[in-house]
Amino acid sequence: MRKKLYINGEWTQSEQYADLFSPYSEEKIAEIPQASEEQVDAAIDAAYHNRESMAKLTAYEKAKILENLVTLFKENRIKAAQIISLESAKPLKFSLGEVDRTIETYKFAAEEAKRIHGEMIPMDAAQNGGNRLGYTLREPIGVVAAITPFNFPMNLVAHKVGPAIAAGNTIVLKPASQTPLSAFFLAELLEEAGLPKGAFNVVTGSGRLVGDRLVTSDKVSMITFTGSPEVGLGIRNKAGFKKVALELGSNAGLIIDEGMDLDKIIPKCVTGAFSNQGQVCISLQRIYVHENVLETFTEKFKEATEKLILGDPLDEQTDLSALISRNDIERAKAWIDEAIEEGGTVVTGGEIVKNILLPTVIVDVKSHSKVSCQEVFAPIVTINSIENVEEGIRQINDSKYGLQAGIFTKDINTALNASKQLEVGGVMINDIPTYRVDQMPYGGVKESGNAREGLKYTIEEMTEMKLVVWNQEQF
Amino acid sequence: MRKKLYINGEWTQSEQYADLFSPYSEEKIAEIPQASEEQVDAAIDAAYHNRESMAKLTAYEKAKILENLVTLFKENRIKAAQIISLESAKPLKFSLGEVDRTIETYKFAAEEAKRIHGEMIPMDAAQNGGNRLGYTLREPIGVVAAITPFNFPMNLVAHKVGPAIAAGNTIVLKPASQTPLSAFFLAELLEEAGLPKGAFNVVTGSGRLVGDRLVTSDKVSMITFTGSPEVGLGIRNKAGFKKVALELGSNAGLIIDEGMDLDKIIPKCVTGAFSNQGQVCISLQRIYVHENVLETFTEKFKEATEKLILGDPLDEQTDLSALISRNDIERAKAWIDEAIEEGGTVVTGGEIVKNILLPTVIVDVKSHSKVSCQEVFAPIVTINSIENVEEGIRQINDSKYGLQAGIFTKDINTALNASKQLEVGGVMINDIPTYRVDQMPYGGVKESGNAREGLKYTIEEMTEMKLVVWNQEQF
Amino acid sequence: MRKKLYINGEWTQSEQYADLFSPYSEEKIAEIPQASEEQVDAAIDAAYHNRESMAKLTAYEKAKILENLVTLFKENRIKAAQIISLESAKPLKFSLGEVDRTIETYKFAAEEAKRIHGEMIPMDAAQNGGNRLGYTLREPIGVVAAITPFNFPMNLVAHKVGPAIAAGNTIVLKPASQTPLSAFFLAELLEEAGLPKGAFNVVTGSGRLVGDRLVTSDKVSMITFTGSPEVGLGIRNKAGFKKVALELGSNAGLIIDEGMDLDKIIPKCVTGAFSNQGQVCISLQRIYVHENVLETFTEKFKEATEKLILGDPLDEQTDLSALISRNDIERAKAWIDEAIEEGGTVVTGGEIVKNILLPTVIVDVKSHSKVSCQEVFAPIVTINSIENVEEGIRQINDSKYGLQAGIFTKDINTALNASKQLEVGGVMINDIPTYRVDQMPYGGVKESGNAREGLKYTIEEMTEMKLVVWNQEQF
Amino acid sequence: MRKKLYINGEWTQSEQYADLFSPYSEEKIAEIPQASEEQVDAAIDAAYHNRESMAKLTAYEKAKILENLVTLFKENRIKAAQIISLESAKPLKFSLGEVDRTIETYKFAAEEAKRIHGEMIPMDAAQNGGNRLGYTLREPIGVVAAITPFNFPMNLVAHKVGPAIAAGNTIVLKPASQTPLSAFFLAELLEEAGLPKGAFNVVTGSGRLVGDRLVTSDKVSMITFTGSPEVGLGIRNKAGFKKVALELGSNAGLIIDEGMDLDKIIPKCVTGAFSNQGQVCISLQRIYVHENVLETFTEKFKEATEKLILGDPLDEQTDLSALISRNDIERAKAWIDEAIEEGGTVVTGGEIVKNILLPTVIVDVKSHSKVSCQEVFAPIVTINSIENVEEGIRQINDSKYGLQAGIFTKDINTALNASKQLEVGGVMINDIPTYRVDQMPYGGVKESGNAREGLKYTIEEMTEMKLVVWNQEQF
Repeated sequence: MRKKLYINGEWTQSEQYADLFSPYSEEKIAEIPQASEEQVDAAIDAAYHNRESMAKLTAYEKAKILENLVTLFKENRIKAAQIISLESAKPLKFSLGEVDRTIETYKFAAEEAKRIHGEMIPMDAAQNGGNRLGYTLREPIGVVAAITPFNFPMNLVAHKVGPAIAAGNTIVLKPASQTPLSAFFLAELLEEAGLPKGAFNVVTGSGRLVGDRLVTSDKVSMITFTGSPEVGLGIRNKAGFKKVALELGSNAGLIIDEGMDLDKIIPKCVTGAFSNQGQVCISLQRIYVHENVLETFTEKFKEATEKLILGDPLDEQTDLSALISRNDIERAKAWIDEAIEEGGTVVTGGEIVKNILLPTVIVDVKSHSKVSCQEVFAPIVTINSIENVEEGIRQINDSKYGLQAGIFTKDINTALNASKQLEVGGVMINDIPTYRVDQMPYGGVKESGNAREGLKYTIEEMTEMKLVVWNQEQF
Repeated sequence: MRKKLYINGEWTQSEQYADLFSPYSEEKIAEIPQASEEQVDAAIDAAYHNRESMAKLTAYEKAKILENLVTLFKENRIKAAQIISLESAKPLKFSLGEVDRTIETYKFAAEEAKRIHGEMIPMDAAQNGGNRLGYTLREPIGVVAAITPFNFPMNLVAHKVGPAIAAGNTIVLKPASQTPLSAFFLAELLEEAGLPKGAFNVVTGSGRLVGDRLVTSDKVSMITFTGSPEVGLGIRNKAGFKKVALELGSNAGLIIDEGMDLDKIIPKCVTGAFSNQGQVCISLQRIYVHENVLETFTEKFKEATEKLILGDPLDEQTDLSALISRNDIERAKAWIDEAIEEGGTVVTGGEIVKNILLPTVIVDVKSHSKVSCQEVFAPIVTINSIENVEEGIRQINDSKYGLQAGIFTKDINTALNASKQLEVGGVMINDIPTYRVDQMPYGGVKESGNAREGLKYTIEEMTEMKLVVWNQEQF
Repeated sequence: MRKKLYINGEWTQSEQYADLFSPYSEEKIAEIPQASEEQVDAAIDAAYHNRESMAKLTAYEKAKILENLVTLFKENRIKAAQIISLESAKPLKFSLGEVDRTIETYKFAAEEAKRIHGEMIPMDAAQNGGNRLGYTLREPIGVVAAITPFNFPMNLVAHKVGPAIAAGNTIVLKPASQTPLSAFFLAELLEEAGLPKGAFNVVTGSGRLVGDRLVTSDKVSMITFTGSPEVGLGIRNKAGFKKVALELGSNAGLIIDEGMDLDKIIPKCVTGAFSNQGQVCISLQRIYVHENVLETFTEKFKEATEKLILGDPLDEQTDLSALISRNDIERAKAWIDEAIEEGGTVVTGGEIVKNILLPTVIVDVKSHSKVSCQEVFAPIVTINSIENVEEGIRQINDSKYGLQAGIFTKDINTALNASKQLEVGGVMINDIPTYRVDQMPYGGVKESGNAREGLKYTIEEMTEMKLVVWNQEQF
Repeated sequence: MRKKLYINGEWTQSEQYADLFSPYSEEKIAEIPQASEEQVDAAIDAAYHNRESMAKLTAYEKAKILENLVTLFKENRIKAAQIISLESAKPLKFSLGEVDRTIETYKFAAEEAKRIHGEMIPMDAAQNGGNRLGYTLREPIGVVAAITPFNFPMNLVAHKVGPAIAAGNTIVLKPASQTPLSAFFLAELLEEAGLPKGAFNVVTGSGRLVGDRLVTSDKVSMITFTGSPEVGLGIRNKAGFKKVALELGSNAGLIIDEGMDLDKIIPKCVTGAFSNQGQVCISLQRIYVHENVLETFTEKFKEATEKLILGDPLDEQTDLSALISRNDIERAKAWIDEAIEEGGTVVTGGEIVKNILLPTVIVDVKSHSKVSCQEVFAPIVTINSIENVEEGIRQINDSKYGLQAGIFTKDINTALNASKQLEVGGVMINDIPTYRVDQMPYGGVKESGNAREGLKYTIEEMTEMKLVVWNQEQF
């Protein structure tokens, strides 16, 4: 039950431990080592000193390690899902889905490892460029420090660890405090998969201590972080010349034009709003419905919501379980209350039952209410009326975030305009903003981040482009 | 003689002015407006409010404006070169060369404007990606603030303004204090070329005031800066979520293997070390020569150096003229003295004649002497002996910088190894590290920067990737 | 009035000449040299022996020649258009349009010349690929023989000559018998533009003699042909190992869904059907209109058609003039008669006035009537009723051709389905099938051809990919 | 022992059978069905009618089938290798190597299936291209007929079947008469891997009958052939508008500069010359050695050759076994005799022992002797003296073939020049011309072919590019 740090290929005890509790049962499930400064440094050093051996692996060898990892995850599919559900209260059906996506993510990483390549440069396009052969190489960036969130403790880690290995980098991973078990499990599998000793390290403990050490170390070349804008900005300001990739928050919106088949759309929306208790970066938080269909939509949405099964995350039937922490339950409840005070009406939910916040639908929400303008990260969705799609676009754009947005419409020009005017990283036409497959470029504008994940894109950020020019004159 | 700010398409007076002197003649050549905070804000606002009209230009229209600019630069070639020489003391022959490259840079920008495009995403590679059409768009990032150096006041500006226009962005330019005239001249030409009003703005004045305002404004989406690591880091730490592209310094090194035809190599090296008084980011600063040919190399290098013609930058014969400021002359002289104290020997130069520092060659320099480990930005080059190429590579890598490096060798494996082991952004085989053509990816690692210029690459950084996915199900 | 062959940079007389007549006035306008076998061989030899000097030009130099050509065409815009109108009876307004597109085509060629480049190959993705540097080069293919049609005597030539020069190839051009003057004019301009002697050759004369010689010569590496499927197939079967790029015919179709604003669509359709007397590869030949709007559409279409101005091609007002030959008039008339016999009804046109076939609209045409299933290449368009878009797609696909097709619809799924199901090289959504810009990939499936034009694509076909692999082991 | 045709997912008897003998033991090993015209047509029809179901598979589904195939090949590695050795007399060690490469080929195919994608077209680069969204799709070409050779009966089939499946095409395979068992084995595995019924068909029998039917059928969209130039040209001339990809012969050459470590080079050369009895498209056939090292090279080469172990292909120790047929032994012997008559000298080998032609080294061979200028496809290599590398390049280029060539040298300029001047599809620097990994672009110039294999490249040829343009105007 007492876990160990994973540093330079060794399972290492720490001096201090913190108890880890299940968010649902609130029982203690493990004791988590709290790394000291020296231990963080040791992990960084391990990564730093093993850079060259990692960089020397051929694409074939790196792909093989990642394919081995894929095989191991397939063999441990149920077990991996249970770990996720246990530590994060994600309902098992979604945990299994996450493991399947994790497998796909590492598979893509294995394949992209074999496709890293530079480009030929047409040097002689310049007046002074004749008689030269020019090309670029893509070299590993070095040590990557990954700081990851609790909401997808396997797959969002995979989006950092997979491409880092593919690119030939070494890694220090600091998982979220609530989800260290997934990280330790990954370390076990990577060891078995044949990753060179020291190439992957896991340090848990105080966010401030571990994070600061990683962010300010001269030996770390890149920080990749998924989390809140505040923490992300803090990292960036302290990171010196390091590359910093940030995947931050969102209050994702969806527009529903008139004339659509609502019965096909509602189930997607309910899933988008409430899966993993809304603790998804692109959770569907704001729905803007054409006024002509608003009433029907709201009614059907309420009905569907009320059919969700609440309960133990380890139960296969469960659709919705506990939020990640008591704090979050209270914060979410306070935001609901604020929304009501400011004019909103709760259509369903709004109550806390044990440590589960009921899936909550609020209408007539003011755009400045927190449940609308902040990232809610809880099973809360707002439904508001719009006169036309243009108004919906304005509402969605009226946000400090810009990750993904969706629109359901039949009309070509409406869709094309929306794809141009929505200020987000990804526009989903006839789908919810929560849609993601793992190879697509994913990331936001504004305060939603500065990077794109999706294996090929992350690998690009995790490699340095080096130009090589051969002057073909004889000397 | 009194110049004006260029804000929102208007030539605007300021309240305060500063005198601008010729670095060579030390005569006053203009009075430069010192923008107030309000004026900087007005320039930012102009750029901000004209974003949409700029973003709406088609590629064809943007390319046409840039082609017009190319034509205007061709018609004003001599005049443009004289402006450069006058304000920066760059010898006219090099100023003409810079104008020619500026023309080529804007030409490439015009052409690349027509090649901006997203990519198709094979969505159905994922299990959950069937029946979807996915692609990315490349959208303008918004307002680009460009902070540019004195050493290439036309062409390094072109590397920021050209791609910004190509990408459909608007621009606020803060040129170096010593070289505002080139920037104002560009504003005149861009106006004539048909750029929409407000899309390009020039503000001069206190670096702190103007720079800070640009770096901290919420309306600016990207800072592109060429200059020192210290200033670059300061910008980055204050820039919030803005994109920050930094092109910083270097102490570029070259390795010369034995067995080469030195008579062909020497002239290239002398040019690389002393053109524009060594005030070039990739000026040849450190030469590592195989011990078997060191003596001959040094002797011939000395001879060639002593043939350089010193004098008035506006004279066509001049090879070398004044440094950009008295401060820089004194700093350079102090560094030479330090190198001597620490064991170095001046082979030629080392003296100041009026405000010209003679082209200086120092041998036996310690690696920790400033003329070796700092960016010297003056006509100083060091020549040191190496036992073999591997030693040369170690010496070059022993630097906080990593922009470009060169190696002269006949041997395939030596060259291939060097191309892998040199820790720089660009390796020039059988050429000096100073080699650059304007379409190639150019930029450094370590403290030499975090970006790549070369039109296509900068355009990529100056655009946002937006994913659009069409779900092909019927709703 | 007596023209000369252009061989190896010399203007050369032939032994025999043929008179060239204006298709409109039927006056003799020139005497065209009829090359002998020896002269064709001499042209091939010139191209063959100048391959290396052409291949040695840098991208910069090739681009410069093409940019010069662009400038010359701009200076000779009116003159060039008059040549086209004179020899082909293309109305002047369309000839001017063709010259403008010719300019754009050569401009794109100039720019693409500077972007030819190979790619880096990730060799170490294979188990046996470690320690290797692999990349491809794009080398000129050699001698390109271009056989071109009369309908765009400048721009369809530009689509072969432009990329051939950009790729560093040499060329023998055999223009259509009716439009040699445009080809000779191009030769003059290319000479002035600085193309190396012998790199471009024009031979006119008997199609059989000249064509056969080009197609069977061992010194020719590629045939690029635009014309009929029968001739194209004949070329391919005789060409041995040569590359053969074919751009053949079409009977382009358009679907008009209900619910559209017909007043906006009709003018596009009339232009698509009748510009250059329908002698356009992607001329709009078959219109399939939703039954609910058929009547209105037909009526408005008739009205618009009857407003076209018929007359002298050199008159700026003229919309429609003579067909290219008496034969073609008679063939077209016979096809109209056949269509009527088989059940069709002429709504307007159908008559010959002097040597002009009136713009002709036929309804209720059987799909097996020649005006529907063959390439009509005359000012004839058919309008048929469809029950729904699916029927339109079936009708369009029921053809041996597959170049481009169009569809006007508001509905997303309808458009997406059509883009997948239409068996053509290009699908134009909310546009006529006649739409083309010169950089886009253009070409057909089925008997419409086997290649894609559009500069980048043609250049790819006109270059050979060569792989270079450096084994980095020491030997 | 009596095999069956594989048509539309059914194992089908034929009316006639032919005996298949082991080339080594000359024992009968199977009876091979000889398809009738009707059966060939049935196979084509099966492929034709299953096009759509194959085209509808998502990339994920196609990749999965190919990954399943990879797994099955891994499980049957030894068995597959024994089949190859049995029917083709390839020594087992090389057969195992071929199976490993076959696995890698299908793995690459699986991965590339997930990377097929079109490109975005910057429409607005043209004056008339504003307000449009343009992109290309890559659609399956339809029915692919594959005609394959005996020398790599698994891996050269994989290079056609793998990309055909990846691209979503259906296939009719006609394997070489001597190696049908490998093809039938593949059919079994593909069935087990889950390929849709009818997507893959195997027809064996008379080359003329089966081949002609495939080449002339209107239902076949593409012929992909590996074999002799004569047959290849015949196919092309009869194929109508079909796409025809040809991988033909070669007489691959290698240059050895002075100054190299011959002891490292010799083993590679011996392998390149004699593996699979020289029956390899890029078998090392001509070695050009710098005169200063010729003598040593020849002596060491002779020694190494004589150490090869001759014998039963199914014996793991065997290096060299029987040629594919008696005819080939006699042809090879006759060519050796001709070479001797014309001045050549046999250094070792030149004799036939049972049905094994001893590995043969001939020096002083005239360039017009068949063993030099024709494709020898037997264990024969020529070694000739050159004064310098330039002479070697001229000798290699003096051939109707141009597949791959190699050069061993230490000198950068020599290598760069050779990479430009060698007229071949692939230049191997410091390696033998026999080097190939399966993802690299592979194919020849001149009479060595017109296509490039390597999965990505073949997939490109096996798909049609379709342009889709959305006009964003409102209609």
